[in-house]
This record gives sequence, structure tokens and C-alpha cells, in this order.
Amino acid sequence: MAIPCVKTIREMRSSISAARREGRSVGLVPTMGALHEGHLSLIRRARSENGLVVVSVFVNPTQFDDRRDLDAYPRDLATDSRLAAEAGADLLFSPEVTEMYPPGFSTWVEVTGLTERLCGASRPGHFRGVCTVVAKLLTICAPDRAYFGEKDFQQLAVISRMVRDLNLPVDIVACPTVREPDGLALSSRNARLTEAERAQAPVLFRALSAARQAVEEGERDPVALAQLVVGLIREAPLADIDYVEVVDAVRLEPLERLEGRCLIAVAVRFGGTRLIDNVVVDVPGGERA
Amino acid sequence: MAIPCVKTIREMRSSISAARREGRSVGLVPTMGALHEGHLSLIRRARSENGLVVVSVFVNPTQFDDRRDLDAYPRDLATDSRLAAEAGADLLFSPEVTEMYPPGFSTWVEVTGLTERLCGASRPGHFRGVCTVVAKLLTICAPDRAYFGEKDFQQLAVISRMVRDLNLPVDIVACPTVREPDGLALSSRNARLTEAERAQAPVLFRALSAARQAVEEGERDPVALAQLVVGLIREAPLADIDYVEVVDAVRLEPLERLEGRCLIAVAVRFGGTRLIDNVVVDVPGGERA
Repeated sequence: MAIPCVKTIREMRSSISAARREGRSVGLVPTMGALHEGHLSLIRRARSENGLVVVSVFVNPTQFDDRRDLDAYPRDLATDSRLAAEAGADLLFSPEVTEMYPPGFSTWVEVTGLTERLCGASRPGHFRGVCTVVAKLLTICAPDRAYFGEKDFQQLAVISRMVRDLNLPVDIVACPTVREPDGLALSSRNARLTEAERAQAPVLFRALSAARQAVEEGERDPVALAQLVVGLIREAPLADIDYVEVVDAVRLEPLERLEGRCLIAVAVRFGGTRLIDNVVVDVPGGERA
Repeated sequence: MAIPCVKTIREMRSSISAARREGRSVGLVPTMGALHEGHLSLIRRARSENGLVVVSVFVNPTQFDDRRDLDAYPRDLATDSRLAAEAGADLLFSPEVTEMYPPGFSTWVEVTGLTERLCGASRPGHFRGVCTVVAKLLTICAPDRAYFGEKDFQQLAVISRMVRDLNLPVDIVACPTVREPDGLALSSRNARLTEAERAQAPVLFRALSAARQAVEEGERDPVALAQLVVGLIREAPLADIDYVEVVDAVRLEPLERLEGRCLIAVAVRFGGTRLIDNVVVDVPGGERA
């Protein structure tokens, strides 16, 4: 099973125009390839809601703050094409770097505020690269809907903000995190874990789940929650914590006390591999434990 | 003679969609109002090339680096509407500031490099504001063509770069500077000049014309040209020079020696009013004076 793979912006636009003339709606699933079940769930969702489903596969250099991470990022277009087709995609868009960033390129889209904490703090320039490439993909493909996973919660919040602020005519569809049976959130980076690291990586979701349960049992102190998560993650000897944050899920800002929709987010390194995960908890406003 | 004035993004989109359904192309003339013959020339050009002509009138606060300049900027929507209608516009788009920048707004579009010199150096944040609002106007109105004057040469270069880099599907149409009989480039800010300042303001174009003639007569040294322009402008006692620059007209970078397409650009203050002007000269490559 194979689907066409478009390499140029010009060709992409003409495929989109053709679909539009036939009255088909367009769904876009932006990816960096190395497709896993998380991506495939986005593609299936897009398939169920659109006439044409485009999966972009582009390892975007401008969102990597670490050259080694960029070089090590897994690439296998043939496998991606097969998996995307099986999940219902109609078309791959896989441009070369010079097609997206030709010589002289010098325009950047940046979201302030939302990008200052969490991954934004530990990966300078990362969200500027994400926003710029997503803005480009949205203007190139002009989709009705674009699909993003909640695993990258901050990315989802930043892109939603950008789309609203720049009046881009697209619905951003948030899709739930897909997990391994042991709770590890699916990520293309999981493939890089050694056997020992892989065995310890489920500690992220175990710690987040414990925090969620603590909130359900009445915990409202963000510092105590963060300490709980840190303590549990430290039980895995290979885990090196980048951050553990408890913030409000809309502005991603620190809380005095849990209230409303809250995000508990972590980033943890295992050797050279950085993993992120999060849970969202809804705390009824004004409630006191 | 009156034309409809649209205040909301939603209403604007629906007017554009209606025009599209009728097969009309769309031309956009972005302005900050206080329309003069320069703007009207853009509107007439747009009229000749499009089925629907939209003139946006929005004094964009994010491109002002000086609050007093923002407050003093002339505003007269009734007159603008009449003038735009007479020049052939179909529709004004005149949103409130909160419609364009609602609470929580935090996305910015920035062009690096091109914005570092000339007006970018003396007006920090100016082009970030310009790029952001123009990107928004282009996604809201989705025009086939957007019209800009060459008087704001750097703005035109920056917007062209942004449109190319972000793959915005619009043609940027550059239109020649319109001048008073004595050579003064039309600008909404001219209305703020005192009688004495107005009498001296034509020195900008006189100096630029002298520089152009010097190039035609063989001058190839950018420093000598800048000195010529500075010397002539200083003959006007009320003129306070902000910058005089001789740069290449594509990258807006300094030149060792004039060659190819070159830009001679000036910014000069008369009291509280800052005026800009420029000429472009084509120097045959490799030629020696």
C-alpha cells in the first residue's frame, strides 16, 4: 500500500486546490516522521473528519536546540508512508529543508508568555521553530483542521494561541496521549532508549498518576504535588529530571493553589534521550480540601 | 458617496467569502487612514486589477515606538471612506484595537536582517508590529493582491520577505511614490508640519535627486554620496537628520561601492514630525566610473 509523496510547496498547493474543487475538506497531521501509534491515532481521527488527509513528514531543523538531537532523530520515509496509508492518509508532504527554508529565509513567528516556562525554558528557540514551521504548513496546506497530540501539551497551547492571534482559518484538534501498556507515552524518541532506560521510563506516568490521585484525594498545594512527583521519579536511578511543573492549563503559569484546569508536566532525561509527559486535572473552583 | 465599513473579523471573512463565491478576485490596500493621493493611487491600481477592493483603515498601535506619535496620528474615518469610495474601493475594514489585539494576544511575526538598519535601527519594534498586523490582515482578508507604496521602501522589502517566507498566497504589488509638485513625498504626517517646516521639507527629495544625478554622472562611492545628501539636507535649518543610508536595494546592507540596484534612503525630523523618503538607482554591474 503506497500513497503519493509530495516534495514541493507548489505541488502541495495544487493537490489541495484539486481537492477543494471536488468539495473535499482538508485535514492536516503535522509530524516529524518516525510514526507511531500516537500519530496514527491523529491520522485516523483526521480520516473520520475530512475528505482529504495530508500527513506532513518534516524533521524541522529550526525547532532543535541541540544539533546531536537533530542528527539522531529517526528518519524512515518508506515505513512512515506505509503506516500513514494504513491509518487512512491520502498524501504525504515531505519537503526538503531547502524547500521550507530557502537561502535568505529570515521570518519567525513567536508566541511570548506561554513559551517562557516548561520546555520553552529548557529549549531556547524551540517554540519559535515550531510556530514558524506550523504557520508555514498551515498556509501551504490551508487545512480545515489540524491535529496535534496532548502529549506535547505546551506545543498544543502555543499553536492554539498562534492560530487565534494570527487569525489562521483552521480548527486545531487536540487528541489524547496514546500510551504503552505500562503507561509510557508514545514518542519517536522512545526508540533511542536502552533496554535499562526503557524499563525505567514508565516512572514518568506512574509519578503523574500518583499526583493526579493525590489531587483527587484533596491535595491543592502545587509545591507538595511537585515534590511528590520528583520523589517518585528519583526512585528510577537512570532518570535525570529536567523539570516538574504544576501550572494552570491555560496560561501555563505557576499556581499558588490548585484551582480550575491544572497541568502537571514533566521532562526527564534518560541518558541522551529527553522524554516529556503530562496530565491535566480539573479542580472545581473555590473548593477547599 | 459611501461604502460599507466592516468592523469585525467575522463580518470581513463573510464579505470575502461572498465575493469569492461570485468569482471575484480580492485586492487589499492596507492603510492607517488619513488617506492622501499616495493611498488613492494604490486604491485605483487595486480597482483596475481586482473584482473586490478592500481598504483597511487601522492605526496599528504595535508598530509605534512612540506613544505621542500614536496619539497624534490623524484619524478621520468619514473623510477616508469618501476618498476611498471615490478612488474605487468597495469596502472599508476598520476594526477596533481590541478586535485585532484581544486580551491575551501574544503572537509576533518578525523578519530578521532586513529590519536591522534604516528605520528598524531608529524605531525598535516597529517592523515587528508592521509584520504582525500585515500577516493578520492577509489571513483575515485572504486577498489575491496587496498594495504597498515604495515610499516605505524598507516596509515593502520586509513584507515581501515575510510573505515569501511564510508562504502566504498573495502577490505584493509595489506602487511608485506620489509626490507634491515641489517633490515632497506624500505622507499622512505632512499635515503635522508647520508652515516653515513644510517650506523646507522638499529638501529631502532635492538631496536624493542630487545623489541620483551624481550616480548617473559616475559617482560610485557610497560614503561620498551620503555626504552629498547630508550636506544638502543640512542647508535646511529646521531639518534634523535621523539617518542617510546608501545600501543595496535587496538585502538593505551597506555597500563598499555602488553596483546593481541600490537604495538611497533618508529619515529626517522637522520638529516632532519624522519624514522618510528614498530613491532607487540602477548601477550597471562591473562598471567603473
